[in-house]
Amino acid sequence: MFTYKTKIRLHDTDAAGIIFFANQFKIVHDAYEDLLETLGWSFQRMLEETNYFLPIVHAESDYKTSVHVGDNITVAIKIGHIGNTSFSFEYTLKRGKTLVGTAKTVHVTIDQKTRQKLPLPKAMRQALEKYQRRK
Amino acid sequence: MFTYKTKIRLHDTDAAGIIFFANQFKIVHDAYEDLLETLGWSFQRMLEETNYFLPIVHAESDYKTSVHVGDNITVAIKIGHIGNTSFSFEYTLKRGKTLVGTAKTVHVTIDQKTRQKLPLPKAMRQALEKYQRRK
Amino acid sequence: MFTYKTKIRLHDTDAAGIIFFANQFKIVHDAYEDLLETLGWSFQRMLEETNYFLPIVHAESDYKTSVHVGDNITVAIKIGHIGNTSFSFEYTLKRGKTLVGTAKTVHVTIDQKTRQKLPLPKAMRQALEKYQRRK
Amino acid sequence: MFTYKTKIRLHDTDAAGIIFFANQFKIVHDAYEDLLETLGWSFQRMLEETNYFLPIVHAESDYKTSVHVGDNITVAIKIGHIGNTSFSFEYTLKRGKTLVGTAKTVHVTIDQKTRQKLPLPKAMRQALEKYQRRK
Repeated sequence: MFTYKTKIRLHDTDAAGIIFFANQFKIVHDAYEDLLETLGWSFQRMLEETNYFLPIVHAESDYKTSVHVGDNITVAIKIGHIGNTSFSFEYTLKRGKTLVGTAKTVHVTIDQKTRQKLPLPKAMRQALEKYQRRK
Repeated sequence: MFTYKTKIRLHDTDAAGIIFFANQFKIVHDAYEDLLETLGWSFQRMLEETNYFLPIVHAESDYKTSVHVGDNITVAIKIGHIGNTSFSFEYTLKRGKTLVGTAKTVHVTIDQKTRQKLPLPKAMRQALEKYQRRK
Repeated sequence: MFTYKTKIRLHDTDAAGIIFFANQFKIVHDAYEDLLETLGWSFQRMLEETNYFLPIVHAESDYKTSVHVGDNITVAIKIGHIGNTSFSFEYTLKRGKTLVGTAKTVHVTIDQKTRQKLPLPKAMRQALEKYQRRK
Repeated sequence: MFTYKTKIRLHDTDAAGIIFFANQFKIVHDAYEDLLETLGWSFQRMLEETNYFLPIVHAESDYKTSVHVGDNITVAIKIGHIGNTSFSFEYTLKRGKTLVGTAKTVHVTIDQKTRQKLPLPKAMRQALEKYQRRK
């Protein structure tokens, strides 16, 4: 399974002394960007060379324990579902062996110009399905 | 119902040209901070003078349409539930009459030192219940 | 002089309990976006309908006192210089009568495609010069 | 010299397609956090166990070229000066061999409670001086 390692930064925290909840979403998106890159997709090339975007239409996150500046976090990514025009990712965030949070993002494929839904591009579907079969 | 007005800023957007999804969570938290202030709670006083925090244990967001820099957004807040040690808020984001997104945050009351759950402070429960009865 | 009012948000602060320094730059850019809108420029229209960008090539900020969540801040903007291909803005941030910080941003006009410098568009030069003459 | 490697994320960019200028400050602060950790200082321990903070009183940044999502950036840090109650860091950001930006931050030592200036703690002065002598 693809894992992404990061460290909590001062700017991820707020005056309550722990990570600001919205920044957990930034972290899982960082992980998702690295996974796509591993699968052969670069965001910059997608923006410049394709006719589609993969905007998020739903996101959710759970927070299990306090996370502080300097904490080392590992994010594991599992594919939730792969549909005709959408797919979802499920994220598990751990500090060492401690589960600190989970998250989910649902993405749709849309036309960059018309903003209408598109079928998931074939190469991306194949790459996602291949990743889904990996252990 | 309490409403909060804001404008989408360039730093809310990303290279895909629309708001970065995690920033919708920032916006609803801004609205929540203003609602609490309206109800008599300032975050700075909570941090300095009380023994509790109200961390978010669950957050979710839906995205209905593309939101761009300069868009004027109105956030309306409804209370979801008020429990013994938790409460939730539901947010509706509109640009004019267009629904652009919804969100939900679930908060628990914890002790600042021990990080254990606490019963919702009485004054806050009363303020939330009063707000819940408002139309 | 154009002034912009804002409030410090929880996500502007960090675990040291005060505003994270980089977020003062976000605030002055918010003020700059509102000033440009007042002068007739919308960022979204600039991105979609013109051939130029106004990227920042230099930015600096001073911090005079601690700023906390909930603080009401007023940003005043003065034009520094207006050159052939560049201009600068100077910002003063106050909480009530207390100076909390200052900032400066230097912008150049570049072609969106070639990323080469362009002369400042005439209409923008006129608008900036008009603003410069205001008291 | 200490170097820090990072990658530009989608949330670092804005609708103009390149990094939002304030986020270059986040990146250099990330580098600074890692340098301090290398020298033996953890932010979390400083917040919890010492009586001082190291707030930034001045920051500046220059931007030399467009930086996009996915770009790999290396930040090198040099110490500017070490004074009685302050010190400064100078940052160089490169993408491969291309200089993409520079930055500087000036820090003072203050008492966490009184917010008054303090002499730089001896152990930190020694660690900074040792780093300064490294090639």
